[in-house]
Amino acid sequence: MKSYQRTQPRRRTQDLPLVFRSLNSHGPSLRIIPVGGCEEVGRNMTIIEYGNDVIVIDMGLQFPEEDMPGIDYIIPNISYLLPKRQHIRGIIITHAHYDHIGGIPHLMPQLGDRIPIYATDLTCAIIQKRQEDYKHYGSKLNLNEIKNDTRIKLGIFDIEFFGVSHNVPGSVGVIVSTPEGIVVHTGDFKIDLKSDIAGRTEVEKIKALGRRNVLALLSDSTNARESGHQFSEHDIKIELEDVIKNAKGRLIIGTFASLLGRLDQIIQLAEKYKKRVAIDGHSMKINIEIAKRLGYMSFNQKTIIPVQEVAKNPPERVMILATGAQGEERATLMRMANREHRILSVEPGDTFVFSSSVIPGNERTVQRLTDKLYREGAEVINYKMLDIHAGGHAKREDLKQMAQWVHPRYMVPIEGNHSFLKMHAKAAVEGGIDPKRVMIPDNGQVISCSGGTCKLTDERIPANYVFVDGLGVGDIGEVVLRDREQLASDGMFVIIAAVDGQTGKLRGSPDIISRGFIYLRENQELLKDVRNKIKEIVEKSATGEETMNAQYIRDQLRDRVGQYLFTKTERRPMVLPVVIEV
Amino acid sequence: MKSYQRTQPRRRTQDLPLVFRSLNSHGPSLRIIPVGGCEEVGRNMTIIEYGNDVIVIDMGLQFPEEDMPGIDYIIPNISYLLPKRQHIRGIIITHAHYDHIGGIPHLMPQLGDRIPIYATDLTCAIIQKRQEDYKHYGSKLNLNEIKNDTRIKLGIFDIEFFGVSHNVPGSVGVIVSTPEGIVVHTGDFKIDLKSDIAGRTEVEKIKALGRRNVLALLSDSTNARESGHQFSEHDIKIELEDVIKNAKGRLIIGTFASLLGRLDQIIQLAEKYKKRVAIDGHSMKINIEIAKRLGYMSFNQKTIIPVQEVAKNPPERVMILATGAQGEERATLMRMANREHRILSVEPGDTFVFSSSVIPGNERTVQRLTDKLYREGAEVINYKMLDIHAGGHAKREDLKQMAQWVHPRYMVPIEGNHSFLKMHAKAAVEGGIDPKRVMIPDNGQVISCSGGTCKLTDERIPANYVFVDGLGVGDIGEVVLRDREQLASDGMFVIIAAVDGQTGKLRGSPDIISRGFIYLRENQELLKDVRNKIKEIVEKSATGEETMNAQYIRDQLRDRVGQYLFTKTERRPMVLPVVIEV
Repeated sequence: MKSYQRTQPRRRTQDLPLVFRSLNSHGPSLRIIPVGGCEEVGRNMTIIEYGNDVIVIDMGLQFPEEDMPGIDYIIPNISYLLPKRQHIRGIIITHAHYDHIGGIPHLMPQLGDRIPIYATDLTCAIIQKRQEDYKHYGSKLNLNEIKNDTRIKLGIFDIEFFGVSHNVPGSVGVIVSTPEGIVVHTGDFKIDLKSDIAGRTEVEKIKALGRRNVLALLSDSTNARESGHQFSEHDIKIELEDVIKNAKGRLIIGTFASLLGRLDQIIQLAEKYKKRVAIDGHSMKINIEIAKRLGYMSFNQKTIIPVQEVAKNPPERVMILATGAQGEERATLMRMANREHRILSVEPGDTFVFSSSVIPGNERTVQRLTDKLYREGAEVINYKMLDIHAGGHAKREDLKQMAQWVHPRYMVPIEGNHSFLKMHAKAAVEGGIDPKRVMIPDNGQVISCSGGTCKLTDERIPANYVFVDGLGVGDIGEVVLRDREQLASDGMFVIIAAVDGQTGKLRGSPDIISRGFIYLRENQELLKDVRNKIKEIVEKSATGEETMNAQYIRDQLRDRVGQYLFTKTERRPMVLPVVIEV
Repeated sequence: MKSYQRTQPRRRTQDLPLVFRSLNSHGPSLRIIPVGGCEEVGRNMTIIEYGNDVIVIDMGLQFPEEDMPGIDYIIPNISYLLPKRQHIRGIIITHAHYDHIGGIPHLMPQLGDRIPIYATDLTCAIIQKRQEDYKHYGSKLNLNEIKNDTRIKLGIFDIEFFGVSHNVPGSVGVIVSTPEGIVVHTGDFKIDLKSDIAGRTEVEKIKALGRRNVLALLSDSTNARESGHQFSEHDIKIELEDVIKNAKGRLIIGTFASLLGRLDQIIQLAEKYKKRVAIDGHSMKINIEIAKRLGYMSFNQKTIIPVQEVAKNPPERVMILATGAQGEERATLMRMANREHRILSVEPGDTFVFSSSVIPGNERTVQRLTDKLYREGAEVINYKMLDIHAGGHAKREDLKQMAQWVHPRYMVPIEGNHSFLKMHAKAAVEGGIDPKRVMIPDNGQVISCSGGTCKLTDERIPANYVFVDGLGVGDIGEVVLRDREQLASDGMFVIIAAVDGQTGKLRGSPDIISRGFIYLRENQELLKDVRNKIKEIVEKSATGEETMNAQYIRDQLRDRVGQYLFTKTERRPMVLPVVIEV
């Protein structure tokens, strides 16, 4: 550990004489609040709180869904934390994936940069690197490195860690000793007894938890839909080896820059099959450099060549690692397919390997990319194990095993949609957990523990979506999104009516601006009819009044022109009337 | 065959004396034009043309992709056919799925309802039923039933059929004898030697084609991405049986209304396991009635109960078949999950079975539906074989087999994305087709055959997207769609500036209407700054001119306000300035 701010140790409740404890029984209780990640995959964040001591585990982002046009990310809601800023003793990050670190640059400026963040060396380095992408926010982080065997005290809480296998190295689970008992948070994990490529699952430490009377186990449900055991990294390597061995020409592998465990395996296999590796894509290059520097990757530096040298090697002796397997317009793969890459082009005989699972909303672009590559004479293989969530998470039999090992009094499935949490719960019950002691929280739902008993309360802290869009954090609400959806589906129709305040007559022809509704130039007749309709509505609405009622005219225009357009087209553009008195 | 219009038989070129044939060699050639379905899955349509004789095979729709907001369907482009209307001798429909019949109600009014449509009894009935949904178009179809052994003459063409297995009964392939040789179009097919549930693949007829010197084979590529052989319907039934046998409580199966082969199996299995079947969903009910009436389904009428009687049966004795497995808001499943169904509610212990593959864009709603069902105490099983494209199409080994049996001179993979066609081509070459005689057409690309030689020409007929949106067919173009996308991603910002024509000064404060950009009420400061900016731009642009140049002011407002908003928010709403001279 390089540095960390140690807060003053406090006496724990259980150290106090019995008489004092019972007096204190109406005092603080332990509160466990999963703020995000319990109704979705992503934006993971859990608060653990006792009296005036608050810690936070993870601060992730979620990628937007298809009904959130224009949104960059969704991040956890920190309304509840803001007034408690000065009580936050530390933020613990379990590993370096965006669904666990992605909220940091957006949220730390609001929470205060002085709050210490604890994470392993690789996780710290990747958080730091991402922070530099958000330099314009002007905030510096208080990052503190931990190792698997580090122990820290954060306010009243004692913190220990255990290493877990995941598809990024340096992943840990967290053990939080509280006045009410021990709370264990697994982070993202798999159980992998055969391999240590992506970090080692410290099984002995986990089994030892089974003898420590753990109060509550919060455990990763991402893959709870899948039955059986997760593959070992060792088995995955054998499969990957098949792909790499059998490629005849050049091999171009597209995957996520943060999938460092898998990238390490790929480079090892490249070395085995005497292929040089070129890395194209800024974030992937940097991530691999960081992992190499910190000793998480051990390839020979000579294996890596600049992309400029790809052409100097025979096709079967070269491999390109690249980002853009989700069809991103500006990434390497699409630029190659579009013949827009400065250096690399697609050659007949190339084999492209993609992550087979596509983030919803990207299906079309990935298919377009695939078709383009085929047009250029390449082949594309979809390989599930390059997916960010493949191979890295415990499946149902593993989840059952984890519940058996830790043997907690209460079981709290987290990290996944509601249905995943339910499936996880079922596995835990098969693993011996009393079904009455399984709690399935919604985002923001408070779990309260006192005197050895936990309950899922009806209290809910704010946990609704916070959208990041461009420079804005939280300034896009449901109203704006609904408008975007309506605009997307049927466009808009603005009417500008200049009305003579004296006569109530329309002055000139009304201006109409329409986008996304219909191509007006080719629908002159409709346009003419609408103009007449507008004239009629305005002049009827304006007559018989002393002073012109612009609001009334506007309402009439919105309703009646909207209805008219629907009758004519079965579309409902957003009708926006402007009435100007002249 | 109930009725069909027979056109006068003509002499075929090959019947003419040799000297005449060679004189005629500059005459008409055979043209094969896949208009849709060769760069996508859907909107299948192929034109076969010789001189003044035109026939059309299939007239399908495509579901919109995620970058086509508001669009209902995409249908084939008929610009090329319109001037040839009177030469169209007939339209042949291979089977009853929407990607083969869905264009009919939109396109036949333009082509002329007199043109005969030929299809099997079930296909005709489903076309007719769909036509009734489009009654307001006021057109009647000239539908003509065929059987597998029907032979018809359409202009110069002789038409025969062969039965194929698919996941809807009554599916056929088409054999077109032309003056240049035989063209075979498989329709959608699988090779299923074990079962005849969804129609029988008439293997002997297909093998016989191998002895008839087929000129060109146009064959289904939908599942060309999959290696090996497609499952037999028999194997699928065994798997389905497992699901049905093991359900403890009620079983609610959500799938597509047109998946009649699979629905038949499900009802048979329900009978085997002594379950009554309630059908909820108008189109599914009607389709099953049609199939039963025509003898394609053979269940006992007593098996079917009204949904009102579901509650009278013990849970394990009842099964509900429903539409809405794509999460459609108004369909049975979502209404049950939302507790909005008039009769059916979700009971703890219910098992819902869904199609596992979700049309892109529906992922979120299907997940939302799943989570809701879990909240109500049900479980959800995803079962791939309920997908519309699962189990019904030939995989690579089957495609190879088809190429071997028919042994055509030229091979034309159709029906699928470009990459699927390429994979199909590879399989056909493995099946003995000369790689130089494989043609992979784009939509609209003309294949020309003359004197036993076919070539993929550079000629392209119009084949771009025709969008159906509400009542409009083809009135939405790329411009409107691009606008919708921009509106969806960053919203819009309308500025109404009333400018004094004399002084060039702004009269009053400019009106601003913004939707989907930012919540203006909470961003008063930005709004104030923009108003000042507008004032500045208008007054600077208007000075020093004799007459006010409204266009110039508008351009200035659009560019500079747009830039200003981007700097402040990193969003690019559509800026629409209106300048009114007062």
